[in-house]
Amino acid sequence: MHTFANIKKSARISNDFWNVTDQAGMFDIVVAGLGEGRHRRLSDGHEFVNMSSYSYLGLDTHPRIVEAAAAAVLSEGSLNTSTSRMRIRFAALRDAEEAMSQLFDVEAVTTASCAVAAWVTLPLIASGLFTGDVPPLMVFDKNAHFCLNAMKASVADESEVVTIRHNDVEALEELCRTHPQVAYVADGVYSTGGQAPIGELLRLQDRYGLFLIFDEAHSVSTLGTNGRGAVLEELGQINDRTVIITSLNKGFGASGGAIFLGRRGSRERFDVALRNGPLMWSQRVNTAGLGAILASTALHHTDELATLQRRLQANIDLFDSLVDTPQHGDGLPIRFFEVGSEEATVALGADLLRHGYYASPIFFPIIGRGQAGLRLMLRANMSTGEIEEFGGLLKTLRDRAYA
Amino acid sequence: MHTFANIKKSARISNDFWNVTDQAGMFDIVVAGLGEGRHRRLSDGHEFVNMSSYSYLGLDTHPRIVEAAAAAVLSEGSLNTSTSRMRIRFAALRDAEEAMSQLFDVEAVTTASCAVAAWVTLPLIASGLFTGDVPPLMVFDKNAHFCLNAMKASVADESEVVTIRHNDVEALEELCRTHPQVAYVADGVYSTGGQAPIGELLRLQDRYGLFLIFDEAHSVSTLGTNGRGAVLEELGQINDRTVIITSLNKGFGASGGAIFLGRRGSRERFDVALRNGPLMWSQRVNTAGLGAILASTALHHTDELATLQRRLQANIDLFDSLVDTPQHGDGLPIRFFEVGSEEATVALGADLLRHGYYASPIFFPIIGRGQAGLRLMLRANMSTGEIEEFGGLLKTLRDRAYA
Repeated sequence: MHTFANIKKSARISNDFWNVTDQAGMFDIVVAGLGEGRHRRLSDGHEFVNMSSYSYLGLDTHPRIVEAAAAAVLSEGSLNTSTSRMRIRFAALRDAEEAMSQLFDVEAVTTASCAVAAWVTLPLIASGLFTGDVPPLMVFDKNAHFCLNAMKASVADESEVVTIRHNDVEALEELCRTHPQVAYVADGVYSTGGQAPIGELLRLQDRYGLFLIFDEAHSVSTLGTNGRGAVLEELGQINDRTVIITSLNKGFGASGGAIFLGRRGSRERFDVALRNGPLMWSQRVNTAGLGAILASTALHHTDELATLQRRLQANIDLFDSLVDTPQHGDGLPIRFFEVGSEEATVALGADLLRHGYYASPIFFPIIGRGQAGLRLMLRANMSTGEIEEFGGLLKTLRDRAYA
Repeated sequence: MHTFANIKKSARISNDFWNVTDQAGMFDIVVAGLGEGRHRRLSDGHEFVNMSSYSYLGLDTHPRIVEAAAAAVLSEGSLNTSTSRMRIRFAALRDAEEAMSQLFDVEAVTTASCAVAAWVTLPLIASGLFTGDVPPLMVFDKNAHFCLNAMKASVADESEVVTIRHNDVEALEELCRTHPQVAYVADGVYSTGGQAPIGELLRLQDRYGLFLIFDEAHSVSTLGTNGRGAVLEELGQINDRTVIITSLNKGFGASGGAIFLGRRGSRERFDVALRNGPLMWSQRVNTAGLGAILASTALHHTDELATLQRRLQANIDLFDSLVDTPQHGDGLPIRFFEVGSEEATVALGADLLRHGYYASPIFFPIIGRGQAGLRLMLRANMSTGEIEEFGGLLKTLRDRAYA
């Protein structure tokens, strides 16, 4: 018991921080969308810019994607087929998966969320079904996303589980040397900032046959040719020792998640995934999400995608020139502005919100205790004025609080 | 290892059956929707009626719900807020949850699917956070749905797990006598037919304080006043020792799932659920699903709901008068037509499909080996002619195969 989690204990620690967040009006803000990352708080009409939105390219309010979502519901005349997708599926589901498979040159299957993608993928890989029936030693990076960590108990029912320090390539190589099959579970780009040492991991894959499982939720669309993400950009093409899961609700601007199972056309893996787990008996992306996926996939083929990626990079550079963070210069859209105490972090967040900018206070269990701060996420559709004003406020308000 | 699952072994057993199903053209049928449970197969234009659709009231193609789904996407201008729902959420999410809480007189929270509702609920309850910080003995019915079973390993990391025989009230009472806190995990109405002995379970709740967790995916909308399902119909009103999870994608005709956490207004439980698990970091229902939930909730308040429930009951009665099954006369829409061998079941399914009726062959791991058959699901929007023709075909084709 409590090998992998202790909900009661975690809840006890984090509860006070959430209460403070709630009291400061930074919890459960109900809004209307104004487009381009702007919201209106419904309780008082206060308008603000979301500086912690993971819609890095601004596709969540892209008119073509939004209209395609609504149109797909009306044209299929339903949100779903009301039968397991393995039995009967709408053409929209087939088309969305084919379009995504073609775009990223992978065998893509969609899921209700990135978390469900983890749920489908990790126990399956742990069982050995993707590694010649030999269950691999399952090695988790300590900072792997919640949705990966939450699978540890299920994974441990299929194979052995080890957790290593963040980005500890040396420890991983030692495990590769001493075990016949090793699978490594990590984020490509971490939701709390930074990324995996992808090049070094691929070197271990070449040398030892290391199986790699990446959560690319914060990297797909945002990075790489046609938005294929950091891992595929480095790989060039997916191989049969790499599986990628991702969200289609972040940079991609649609709904649900996806699994890139391996090389395009690997029908066998597709069948294995479909027949052994939640894909068999749980919900798929509804037709609105599928319409959005199709429209977003089409957009990923155009110059517009590269333009948005360039705008995002320019905004990251502008922010870095104004505010110093540990992530300065890494080219990723996630910045962590450390404050220290949970209370001061929430107070700074509330101050910023009064000035028209929302930024998420993050603390335990997202990060370690006493290391609280604001998680900032740059977007392609932020204006220069917004970034400059926000950068200035961030420093002024923090300096005032600590003066 | 393999305390709760053995994916490699299950896959080996079921794989042949799925291959047979695939070869018979009964796997992954890509269709266009024609409304009212009818589909057109895209490969050849063949039209058929779905006799295994879990849209028991036909709400999946109800024009008001479908139109509301599309309209909600356009009016919010996005599928999501691109931030955790615990931080910023659209009014549509608040309104959908408030409407559902009011309709069923519960504290309702929505999830991306019923499976995610299980993921949120079971480890949390196992931790003891809903039972005065005492982790309850977690007792699973052997036939509890996949989405509940799949949580066993995570649940066992928070508390002790026991699995008992199907509907074994005696064994459960013995556990209640010998343990200070017991929680029982079951389906209200089972996806393979039949239901829980709800009255007897409530008696154990009265006597021992038994905590009850029901999956009501096949019962909400279909049964009870305003579609509140079998459990709430028997309870009258939810109590704080009962949690219900459900799908909003079956009878309800929308997307996602829901958790009925307890009495309406139990804000503390709402916060506990929100702050400790997938609700914190995973996707919520998109705005299309939320629009559908709101429209369906409104419909549940009208006489139309009762009319559809009556039509469904009349269709169940008609079917029962034509075809004998073990579920005959139980008033539920799920019927199991046993054939025996997996191959004969699939052959019968393929024959029926040629005649214009789709019925799902089910076999291991959904049910035991060598007990294969067709899972039939009655709907309010089946015509008398369809049911009569299908009932006749079912008998003729089976008799012919066994002659």
